[in-house]
Amino acid sequence: MKRIRMIIEYDGTNYVGWQVQPNGVSVQQLIEEQLRAVTGEPVTVNASGRTDSGVHAKAQVAHFDTESKIPPEKFAFALNAGLPKDIRVRYSGEAPQNFHARFDAKSKQYRYTVHNAAHSSAFLRNTALHIHYRLDMERMKLAAALFLGEHDFSAFKAANTSVQNCVRTVTRSEWSKQGEILHYDVEANGFLYNMVRIIAGTMLEIGMGRREPDSVKKALLTGRRFDAGPTAPAHGLMLMRVKYEDFDTDDFLK
Amino acid sequence: MKRIRMIIEYDGTNYVGWQVQPNGVSVQQLIEEQLRAVTGEPVTVNASGRTDSGVHAKAQVAHFDTESKIPPEKFAFALNAGLPKDIRVRYSGEAPQNFHARFDAKSKQYRYTVHNAAHSSAFLRNTALHIHYRLDMERMKLAAALFLGEHDFSAFKAANTSVQNCVRTVTRSEWSKQGEILHYDVEANGFLYNMVRIIAGTMLEIGMGRREPDSVKKALLTGRRFDAGPTAPAHGLMLMRVKYEDFDTDDFLK
Repeated sequence: MKRIRMIIEYDGTNYVGWQVQPNGVSVQQLIEEQLRAVTGEPVTVNASGRTDSGVHAKAQVAHFDTESKIPPEKFAFALNAGLPKDIRVRYSGEAPQNFHARFDAKSKQYRYTVHNAAHSSAFLRNTALHIHYRLDMERMKLAAALFLGEHDFSAFKAANTSVQNCVRTVTRSEWSKQGEILHYDVEANGFLYNMVRIIAGTMLEIGMGRREPDSVKKALLTGRRFDAGPTAPAHGLMLMRVKYEDFDTDDFLK
Repeated sequence: MKRIRMIIEYDGTNYVGWQVQPNGVSVQQLIEEQLRAVTGEPVTVNASGRTDSGVHAKAQVAHFDTESKIPPEKFAFALNAGLPKDIRVRYSGEAPQNFHARFDAKSKQYRYTVHNAAHSSAFLRNTALHIHYRLDMERMKLAAALFLGEHDFSAFKAANTSVQNCVRTVTRSEWSKQGEILHYDVEANGFLYNMVRIIAGTMLEIGMGRREPDSVKKALLTGRRFDAGPTAPAHGLMLMRVKYEDFDTDDFLK
């Protein structure tokens, strides 16, 4: 038995998210179906975490076990031959027997992309949130810095989730601008459900002048969902990178 | 009567190209239909040039005449409200009465994009040609430089086109690399039918070692189509910029 790990890239536009759902096609389902076709085994795939409907991944990590004689690095080719073009396995290789894509992840990095222009773009329509209001980057940068460090992120998780411990450590939280395109990059040792989308939605209200940068401090202190801003739409969000003790997706993608 | 000019961005994936065709939906057709809905007039739109089926535009320029009272800069908003999301009017404004999008164009700039990696990408699938063979950028750069200047490009036009004068002046012809992504940027005072795609196809053969950089010289001299390489696929090509005496698309897009 071998444990195989993969880096998977997907355009989430046409999927109900990573995880198998009753109401539509998921990325996990298509990969498991293809693995079954290729290996003849009923394979279960474990990812670093689920992504919501419409959320994208440049570098999702997932592992599975197989008795197949297919060389580990060839799984990427074998799977891509049968997968739709909006899901691509960018790497496959053998992992240590005890590697776990979810439990071993040291940190994950997400990017929220905003297209700030009078008119939306044909090419960014599925991967950036279009905002035509003027956004004040200085205010958004002030707010972004307040998320750095160890905090209880209870106010920044979907109201219907029941997680015991909402303390996470954010090691990167910054806005950058390239012409009309704004990127918010955030790295943490873990994320709560909808955490990045609520952080982004809060900062966008701050950028539009509807909320003060300091309001982030209050939300972090009270832990009340209604002290934070709205959940930004899914299609602006992308899982960019996952780091492990012995494995970093950035080492395989350029 | 006012003459209006527009900058139009489109993802060509779902269209038969710019020009109205009997066999499918064109960008021109959708814009003319929308203009008729907005103005109540039967409007004809003139572009800087047609683009083939599957070819994209970041900045196509087109003009039309109207008696409508809609302020010139508002046409972009009015049209975008009814157009599909993969066609966007990024700018509209009044032009001089004698402005002509096609005949007045001083130069156009195209980009051909190659994704050079073992596996294709979910996000580049519609806008870059995926090549998994190793490409020698130094050879491709040598070849690119040979297109600079005034040449008869008869060998680099589709065999079935009948143009009188095939002499064009290329003012930019260069490859650049960002990780796995290669861009070929070319600017000229005009382009023959399929010219950029044949130039790109020729240089890709040179990059793969199937053809020598100097073979470009021979093709430019003989003017024979079979002395040049194959026509590269449409989906890697994008119209990037059109320049006029009084108007440059780059001044409106970032």
